[in-house]
This record gives sequence, C-alpha cells and structure tokens, in this order.
Amino acid sequence: MENAPTPANILAIGFSFWQSKVLLSAVELGVFNELAKGPADLATLSKKLGLHARSARDFLDALVALKLIDRQDGRYSNTPETDLYLDRDKPGYVGGLLEMANARLYSSWGLLTEALKTGRNQSESKESGDLFGALYADPARLRGFLTAMSGGSLAPAQALAAKFPWKNYKTFADIGTAQGMLPATLASAHPHLLGAGFDLPEVKPVFEEFIAGRGVSDRVKFLAGNFLTDPLPSAEVLIMGRILHDWDLAQKRMLLQKAFAALPKGGALIVYETMIDDERRENAMGLLLSLNMLIETQGGFDFTGADCQTWMHEAGFSQTRVEPLTGQQSMAVAIK
Amino acid sequence: MENAPTPANILAIGFSFWQSKVLLSAVELGVFNELAKGPADLATLSKKLGLHARSARDFLDALVALKLIDRQDGRYSNTPETDLYLDRDKPGYVGGLLEMANARLYSSWGLLTEALKTGRNQSESKESGDLFGALYADPARLRGFLTAMSGGSLAPAQALAAKFPWKNYKTFADIGTAQGMLPATLASAHPHLLGAGFDLPEVKPVFEEFIAGRGVSDRVKFLAGNFLTDPLPSAEVLIMGRILHDWDLAQKRMLLQKAFAALPKGGALIVYETMIDDERRENAMGLLLSLNMLIETQGGFDFTGADCQTWMHEAGFSQTRVEPLTGQQSMAVAIK
Repeated sequence: MENAPTPANILAIGFSFWQSKVLLSAVELGVFNELAKGPADLATLSKKLGLHARSARDFLDALVALKLIDRQDGRYSNTPETDLYLDRDKPGYVGGLLEMANARLYSSWGLLTEALKTGRNQSESKESGDLFGALYADPARLRGFLTAMSGGSLAPAQALAAKFPWKNYKTFADIGTAQGMLPATLASAHPHLLGAGFDLPEVKPVFEEFIAGRGVSDRVKFLAGNFLTDPLPSAEVLIMGRILHDWDLAQKRMLLQKAFAALPKGGALIVYETMIDDERRENAMGLLLSLNMLIETQGGFDFTGADCQTWMHEAGFSQTRVEPLTGQQSMAVAIK
Repeated sequence: MENAPTPANILAIGFSFWQSKVLLSAVELGVFNELAKGPADLATLSKKLGLHARSARDFLDALVALKLIDRQDGRYSNTPETDLYLDRDKPGYVGGLLEMANARLYSSWGLLTEALKTGRNQSESKESGDLFGALYADPARLRGFLTAMSGGSLAPAQALAAKFPWKNYKTFADIGTAQGMLPATLASAHPHLLGAGFDLPEVKPVFEEFIAGRGVSDRVKFLAGNFLTDPLPSAEVLIMGRILHDWDLAQKRMLLQKAFAALPKGGALIVYETMIDDERRENAMGLLLSLNMLIETQGGFDFTGADCQTWMHEAGFSQTRVEPLTGQQSMAVAIK
C-alpha cells in the first residue's frame, strides 16, 4: 500500500493554476515592491495594496506557504529570492515575464484545447496572425514585452557570460536583442568585448535607456534592422537567444543561413533556447514553451539540440556542439 | 554561488498554469480514456482525439515529460496512476474535478485580482451570488458537479474508512453527500455499517445510481433535505466532508450546532477538509482552496484544525481531536 499509486500528483498538476495565479496577481498588485521597502503587518499591507479584508490574510498566507514571502511575528517580508527578482526597482527583476503571463498568456492558454484541435494561434494576434506587429505597434505594450523578455534573459545571459570562451573573441552581436539584457551582461562580465544589439528600430530608445543604466554604453551599441528581411550584422560571435522558436521551420533555416553568411571564417553562432531534450521526455518546460508558441505564433515551435545541430549543418556550419546553460536552457554553438 | 538564489522557482510557480492547462485539456479531449483501451502511436492517437498535426506531438510529449503518460517505441500509454484515476470508465476516476476546473475555475481564477480587491466571488454565480442554486437548477451541470465532488472524495473516503474506529459504531449519515462516494466507500469497507447520504432532493437519482453501481444499496439510503433550513438526520456518526468551507462563519456555527442537536449522547461528528495548518504557513493547498471559496462563494473560507475545534466546543461538544487523513486533508472529530 505504501507504493500504491495515488491521485495526489494528478490533482497537484491539474490545480497548479491556482498557485500560478496567486503569484501573478501578487506581481500585479505590487506585493514584492511594497515589501522591498520593509516588513509590514496584515493591516498595513492590506491598505497599501488595496486588499479586501475577506481576501487579504488567505492571499498573503498562501504566498507564505508557497515560500514566496515570509511571515515572522505577524509581519510579512520578501524572501531573498523575491526581493532580488520581483522588486521592480532592482536590476534582477524577472517579473516582466509574469506581468506578461498575467495580462496575456493566462487567458490565451484558456483556449489551449482549440489550439490543439486547429493548430492555430489563440492570442490577441489570432485575428491578424501577427503577434510581433501587434506588440510593436504600441510603445507601451512594446516596452512591457521587452521588459518581459529581459526577465527571461537574465539567468541564461549570466550562464552564457561564464560558459563561453569569450577570451578568444573581441566582438559580438545579439540578434533580436530586445531590451539588451544579454549584451549588457556580456559587456559587464568581459571588459574586452565590444558588442551590439540588433532589433527593430522601435526598440532603440528602450535599449539605449537600459544599456545606459548598466553603464556599458561605450561598448554596446544598437543596430536597427529586421532579421526577417535584412542581412544580419557582422561580428565574431552572433547570438540568437529565444528567437528561433518564434518562427516556422523555413524561417528558422533562413535565419541560420543569414548567420552563416554574416560570420567571418572561424566565427561562432550561439543559439540558446529552453531546448527540448533529444528524447523529448524530460524537459517539460521546453515542450510547454513549444505549446506556448502554438498559442502565440503562426508557425513557431521549440526544438531539441539535435534538431538545431542538423539545421546548423544544413546552413553550412561544420563544427557544432550543445552545452547546458541553466537548469532548463541550453546553447548550441556552431563554428564557421 | 551554489546556494545563490535563482529565479527558477519563481518562474516555475508563475508558469505552472501551463502544465495545469495541458492536463485539463488532456482530460477534456479524452486522452486517458483512449489510452485505457491500449497503447497507440502518434498518428492513430491524433486521429482519434482530433489533434492537429502542428500540436499533437508537442502536446503528447509534454504529457510524457509531466509523467502523466508514457512513450515506448513511439507508442503512448497511460501510467499506472492515470490509468486508475483518469479513465472515466473506472471507479477511481478523479477527472470530474479536473473537468470542473477546466470548464469553470480556470477562467474564474483569471479574475483573482478583482476578487482580492473586492472580496467578492467571481464565478458564474457572480450576478446571482448563489453558486449552488445555479448548479442545482440544471440536471446536466448538477451531475457534472456531483461527479467532480466524487473525484475529491475518493482519497479522503478511503483514509476515513481506515483511520476512524468504525467498529464502535453501527450507523452514520454523510451530510452534503453529493454522489455518495463517502457512504459507498465506508459501507464497502465495513459490512456492519448502515449509512445514509443527506443532500438536496435533486441529488437523489444521481446518488442512487452511484450507490447501486457500488453494490451497497441494501445498506446505504438517500435522505432528502436542505442542511441550511432543515434539521439534520440522526445517526451515531455524522460526517461533514468539504461542506463547512462553502459557508460563512455564522453558517458554519449553525451547521455544527445542528450536528450536535442531531447526535445521540456519545455520538461522533467528523468534519474533514483540506485543513490549513494551525500556523497557516505549510499547507498551501488549504490556503489556495480558501481563495477558491472566495472565487466561488459569497462567504466561504477554509480554516485550521484549531479553528474547527474552537467552533465545535462552542456548539457544545466536549471532546475534540484533529487527525491527518491524506497528505493535505485532515479530520476533526468531536464526541457529544
């Protein structure tokens, strides 16, 4: 009986949208920002956050039980993790991703069954089919999206700064750079590097503000362009972080061919993604992200390291390798 | 650096609605029912389930990575757990709870922030304020709700059958019995027991069909009544399983007083719930369930074992105790 199957794991997965939504609402309501100022008791925090008396205590204690905040002698406080990563005023803020999940993805994912049956995207780009056109047309939404992308770039950027042999290279360009988290992190970690962030022209002011805030404006510049229609910039190392998964197979191949064309002999292309394990049975987050591409894009999908290496060879690269970056993310490196 | 905080846990919680929705859609689409007939390859399963080619492989492999199905030599199969608990044709089916989550709760929880600010319920009973009136008015929806409740009753009913000293008692009544999972389980486990399920008259046909299917119709009968407005039936043991949390404090107290009045001297009241730990910092599911009561009901909330014992004493009971039932559920027992 000890090892008899139980429904506990099934129900925990099925109802995990509850814990998810509690965290997403906490970010929306500014819980972690408020607690970054210092511990607060139930009454004070309820008033500051605008929480109703019926809801406040269960909500805050649920965050305690989820280990997202702490409570001592009736006063709530951030944990070390949430203080670093969910205070909007700190450079490690990853909450932009959660803001995006709360504002857009949670409801789009409510239509997953339809997406599974039709193969068609279900986000607000459902009508136009053009997610990025819709996002980039509105400066406020664009800024939100770019900030969200930084939330997802922080950890892999730190890993990439540590795990790639940067001492062998002097220049890099980040293709589809968004706010510039990756070039800022690389330039900060390696003072000999000169870098660029390549993205649509609408991104420039958000990028330059961010890069200036990180104190690396002298070594990181913005290059405007459209990677679907323009050639890619030249540098000894090109990086494509979480952009290939947005596009269909023909577009993926086209982007890899453009990278090959733009690199000098001996130059390196780094593709990093939440790559699915080659057996497609371990990295659940990679497979779920691929379903997110189903929900969000017309043809995007995530892929394995082996898939990526195959496409890299097809594009002309001779040497390729895949290495882990973070718990769930990997980089495929190709040398021209 | 090994122990440095990372955003990984934060992002895992924030995006756990993805794994949740994949399972909920799998139940909706009948994945586990289809695989209960035998293993199937991608093409066969896609056709039977109506999955689009773009979506099917990622969806099924995500279920593999979540350990909800298995895949060997290209053929998908249920795991022992999902075969037992997610095949609609098996008595252990708990998927009714997930069907309810998919059809109603996922979208209602999208309004959590509003509920936290206003203290008001957000489900389809938002206008009328009467969740149960809305559910009980439609026979098909009522059957769905009652089946869902059985999904949540299976594990605690088995634990309650094993952990309470039933040999000391001959009769019991389950208050708010729904489909009758609890009385059926108790009667099956203890052939000397005579039991009853008490619920609104609309429940009778669903209850009697279920009890007949379990082969205990000779010892388990249905008693029609409204626990808010009628006296409770008399038996040596009364059970209130996951009903007190639906109601506000005054209604909770009134129900406990009615139980005290209905019991003989020496009789026992058992209240089982996903009780919050007394410190309100460990049992996240109890606190999240309380927020579900915020979303679903006008005044309901979950509570700790200490809270329940206090109310039991106020209702006149002299001896009370709290014991664990399943990983997250506990029972409070009061002796008259």
